Amino acid sequence: MASHLEQAMARAAASVEAAIDRLLVPTVRPEAPLWDAMRYGALGGGKRLRPFLVLESSGLFDVAPEHALRTGVAVELIHCYSLIHDDLPAMDNSDLRRGRPTVHKQFNEAVAILAGDGLLTLAFEVLADPATHPESSVRSALVTALAVAAGPSGMVGGQMLDLVAETTSFDLAETSRLQEGKTGALIRFSAEAGAILGHAGSEQHQALGATPGISAWPSKLPTISSMWKARPTPSASRSALTRRPARQPSSRCWASPARGPKRSGLRIVPPVILISLVSARPISRRSLISLSIVTPEDRPGLSSVNRAVACKPRRWCG
Amino acid sequence: MASHLEQAMARAAASVEAAIDRLLVPTVRPEAPLWDAMRYGALGGGKRLRPFLVLESSGLFDVAPEHALRTGVAVELIHCYSLIHDDLPAMDNSDLRRGRPTVHKQFNEAVAILAGDGLLTLAFEVLADPATHPESSVRSALVTALAVAAGPSGMVGGQMLDLVAETTSFDLAETSRLQEGKTGALIRFSAEAGAILGHAGSEQHQALGATPGISAWPSKLPTISSMWKARPTPSASRSALTRRPARQPSSRCWASPARGPKRSGLRIVPPVILISLVSARPISRRSLISLSIVTPEDRPGLSSVNRAVACKPRRWCG
Repeated sequence: MASHLEQAMARAAASVEAAIDRLLVPTVRPEAPLWDAMRYGALGGGKRLRPFLVLESSGLFDVAPEHALRTGVAVELIHCYSLIHDDLPAMDNSDLRRGRPTVHKQFNEAVAILAGDGLLTLAFEVLADPATHPESSVRSALVTALAVAAGPSGMVGGQMLDLVAETTSFDLAETSRLQEGKTGALIRFSAEAGAILGHAGSEQHQALGATPGISAWPSKLPTISSMWKARPTPSASRSALTRRPARQPSSRCWASPARGPKRSGLRIVPPVILISLVSARPISRRSLISLSIVTPEDRPGLSSVNRAVACKPRRWCG
Repeated sequence: MASHLEQAMARAAASVEAAIDRLLVPTVRPEAPLWDAMRYGALGGGKRLRPFLVLESSGLFDVAPEHALRTGVAVELIHCYSLIHDDLPAMDNSDLRRGRPTVHKQFNEAVAILAGDGLLTLAFEVLADPATHPESSVRSALVTALAVAAGPSGMVGGQMLDLVAETTSFDLAETSRLQEGKTGALIRFSAEAGAILGHAGSEQHQALGATPGISAWPSKLPTISSMWKARPTPSASRSALTRRPARQPSSRCWASPARGPKRSGLRIVPPVILISLVSARPISRRSLISLSIVTPEDRPGLSSVNRAVACKPRRWCG
């Protein structure tokens, strides 16, 4: 039987899937391969962790669900485009993604390049649409935040560092910057999005965006099941929630369910964002599930995901 | 001696070049190749026709020059990213661009893909920045318009049609849609941008955006010098300015200088946009230079540029 957590994440993922399906309408016109490839790359799988974080952070500020969903869709489009381009022969040269042929294998390289470009551009069209928020100031702020997160000073910069890491040995600072960009930037945006949509005060906004431990994240987040299985005692969970995470990542993995009386859903967020959420609105603590940082030692498969980390596991893990 | 027109375009191009140079600050950090590639792909040449159109359409609505310039930079970043991705081996496989090695030849394919992604994303960061316009409603409208123009229903869709045209014979309607998307959409945005920035009324805005003949454009606009050399008599020029262009493109090429008493610059715009500008503000007529549509027969080199057009020159030229 699926846990509350799994149910909550599955509901969010289903909403995101349906929204992307409505957005990317297939066509019978000659440009059909473009739309088919965008649909192929953006539909049919994935944890939808980033939109889930958008929905959860939005829940803290009473944001209208449809506004949160559209914002979640935008960040997911960016995530999906980055995977399509990352898989290209000139990049990671991956044949499979989520057990299916990658977009350039299913279609061809040219179509995959264009599909990625299309999804990236569409993300900003979605954000700037009044359906995402009635106030243009909010929409503009979302566009700025996502562009910064996804651009050359964010995700694309991290991808560049990942390429450089193939031939260069990175120290901890550079490895951290790689992680902050390639994976952390979109996660950070997702946590901040609720504050932007919900007109959070600057302090709450800052707390959501302040992710001191983000640099220590593995580039792939652990699977839901691995998080769910490793539960600490409730007391351990509560005490962990009251303190900020240490700069050095912990090697323990734990999670705690919590059912707040006012909220039916469960929340699962990386610890640094968790702490930020807690800082933003302490009353929500009870409805949070926490997860400490998972090091490559805990999940050996991770080391193959990130070459830079694999180069320096000892230094990286402290 | 350079003509007034050439001087005006050179001034605009220099402003755009300097603005992009300030935007893309090189770095000595490990991700330097990304920034170097973005600079390489976005600096050092090009007519900057799209920003020129933004500046000129903005001039009709008394838009602050710095706002027009930033908007022009954004559309130019999109144009430059599209060239970088278009040149990739999986796309047009071009080794040279403006007499220099293409970005993937100068760096490598992976860096070229990321540089294109970076410029595309940066364009929206530029537009959504309050420095582009103090009103968020204007910034949001610009983001929407540029995303629609550059996305899968605009430029990227046109690029997809261009790929399909390699193996499929298109009729006039599909050829027109290819042109409208691949080349026309960004040009149309550039003509509309002034209206958006300048709070033009819906009628003026519509007039700027309504480009009935845009579908008939060759994918490469004629060079300035070729336009400049083929001047009609002033009377022919004036009468042409008073009527809308026919749906079928003319095979004549002509241009006319005009020096308005209130404006020192000269304007050169494709005819459909010219007519739109005239509709928007008739008083500006005298300061416009007009150019009729150039067919592949006039410029044989064009037919090699666009395969779809080359397939159906007779139908396309009416």
